Amino acid sequence: MPAPENFVLTSADMPIASAGQVLVQTLVLSLDPYMRGRISDAKNYAAPVAIGEVVVGGTVGRVVESHAPGFAPGDIVEGPGGWQEFAAIAASQLRKIDPELAPPSTALGVLGMPGLTAYFSLLHVAQPVPGDVAVISGAAGAVGQIAGQIAKLAGCTVVGIAGDDDKLAYCVNELGFDHAINYKTVGDIQAALTAVCPNGVNVYLDGVGGAISHAVFNHLSFKARVVVIGQISQSNLTEPDMGPRSMRYFLTSRARMEGFIVGDWAPRNAEALARLSAWLKEGKLRYAEHAVDGLENAPAAFIGMLKGANLGKTIVNVAR
Amino acid sequence: MPAPENFVLTSADMPIASAGQVLVQTLVLSLDPYMRGRISDAKNYAAPVAIGEVVVGGTVGRVVESHAPGFAPGDIVEGPGGWQEFAAIAASQLRKIDPELAPPSTALGVLGMPGLTAYFSLLHVAQPVPGDVAVISGAAGAVGQIAGQIAKLAGCTVVGIAGDDDKLAYCVNELGFDHAINYKTVGDIQAALTAVCPNGVNVYLDGVGGAISHAVFNHLSFKARVVVIGQISQSNLTEPDMGPRSMRYFLTSRARMEGFIVGDWAPRNAEALARLSAWLKEGKLRYAEHAVDGLENAPAAFIGMLKGANLGKTIVNVAR
Repeated sequence: MPAPENFVLTSADMPIASAGQVLVQTLVLSLDPYMRGRISDAKNYAAPVAIGEVVVGGTVGRVVESHAPGFAPGDIVEGPGGWQEFAAIAASQLRKIDPELAPPSTALGVLGMPGLTAYFSLLHVAQPVPGDVAVISGAAGAVGQIAGQIAKLAGCTVVGIAGDDDKLAYCVNELGFDHAINYKTVGDIQAALTAVCPNGVNVYLDGVGGAISHAVFNHLSFKARVVVIGQISQSNLTEPDMGPRSMRYFLTSRARMEGFIVGDWAPRNAEALARLSAWLKEGKLRYAEHAVDGLENAPAAFIGMLKGANLGKTIVNVAR
Repeated sequence: MPAPENFVLTSADMPIASAGQVLVQTLVLSLDPYMRGRISDAKNYAAPVAIGEVVVGGTVGRVVESHAPGFAPGDIVEGPGGWQEFAAIAASQLRKIDPELAPPSTALGVLGMPGLTAYFSLLHVAQPVPGDVAVISGAAGAVGQIAGQIAKLAGCTVVGIAGDDDKLAYCVNELGFDHAINYKTVGDIQAALTAVCPNGVNVYLDGVGGAISHAVFNHLSFKARVVVIGQISQSNLTEPDMGPRSMRYFLTSRARMEGFIVGDWAPRNAEALARLSAWLKEGKLRYAEHAVDGLENAPAAFIGMLKGANLGKTIVNVAR
């Protein structure tokens, strides 16, 4: 588990935006589970952040200076600004945000990476059909809260798994999830799954991994689909997490497991954002944000998120 | 591991074929890894064989008496006759075999369940494209020997894994596999995979499971496909086989794992058998059979197969 002393707040010269780049002042920084994997030298799908480098992260910011067509000072943009107050970012990596349509921070949540992750992983990889039972781990997190609601829109019975009763109550009472399992207090998670999924699990969105996933594997129904979108339970392990080998569960149920990284779906982002925006406008999607103020508080907020302190999307308000 | 004393050879009254059934004399009995799962009370995709019952098994036989249209005495048929000399079988479960086209025993191998397993699991679930690297475990078994050759027809580089140098030499020299790994003698299987699959593994046909599969998971390339067709290494375990949890491998490579049971594909059997027959006739598919004579030797042959004594399809010649 990262500790505050692993982070240093330093001053540096103002970045200089060269041709094709835009200088952006960070307004909101996104904190996401994937960042834990980036500050590690374990094999991953992207290169790690080296010691001394700025931690990677999505940001919403205001254009200060533009050296690229299509961007002007004052524009609100979403991009990979990282944990810093100002960033010089290639225009090709920026997306212009209309702050009138939705609060700009949604570009880091329901209308950003977490929302896109929920949308594509659930609808285009898991491909639920009405009547399916969908289990969402990390149910109250940035992705889980959106994925559960999309599963409801698709006609699923939705079971949320998280580690806090208040967060699960939010999922059920505010977001419309059908069932909730608190993995920390449930005791026998197998029995709990049997109780709420007597006919098995058709879809499992796995952002957590570990023993929770093994429990769900034991309940996969015929042709179930497991989408692995993260493994937050594994991030801080120093030894491999051992468990019963999973292949037999997939054999007997003819189930499918597939790994998912949202960046692979970027060519279809516009299509997904149009639908997510419409659902948001129509009140069919709700979201919670867990916001802290000040870049200096990012490490504590990040560690808190890894421990499950957040309800919904974790953001840091860096400037106004 | 089953032992000879778990089997009893007994005499019984001749089965009586009722309306819609056919009385069949067993000529050849098929021995297959899936039978190990059936003589177990572990959860499986089909009901177990109860103590005292005839062990299930595919057979080729000769019609003795027919009470169903389309079958006449003397016809050669393939069906679920089980470990017995005569069986009364519903006509709907029988397939008429033309003994002039290929030796009747092929209806239990390359032109039967193992060949169909190889065909559908590889071509329709793994869906290789030319240039893919396909790893086949149980390479010299009934399914593996066919799957590797079909992968070659599909333009793959084929790596066979088995536990015997002679069998692997057969795969490479007779069947055209590109590389072979003897998992019993290789020492470091990770290093061996790195050596023959420097760009990773695109397709893995997993009939074995256990540590071999874990090693292959560590080499999955982007969008790799793992098809779980069996888990023979797990059949005789009394405690769950523990290993590093596999989900992270699928996440980082965006790979897919899917369970496969050949019976699910039965509606397309005719299409597959037409192609397999044509390839056999054209000399594009070869096969090996490991045959023993006498039903009384079925238990020893079955146990031998579970231990890997067979090269290719294991059959018992019961009558002529």
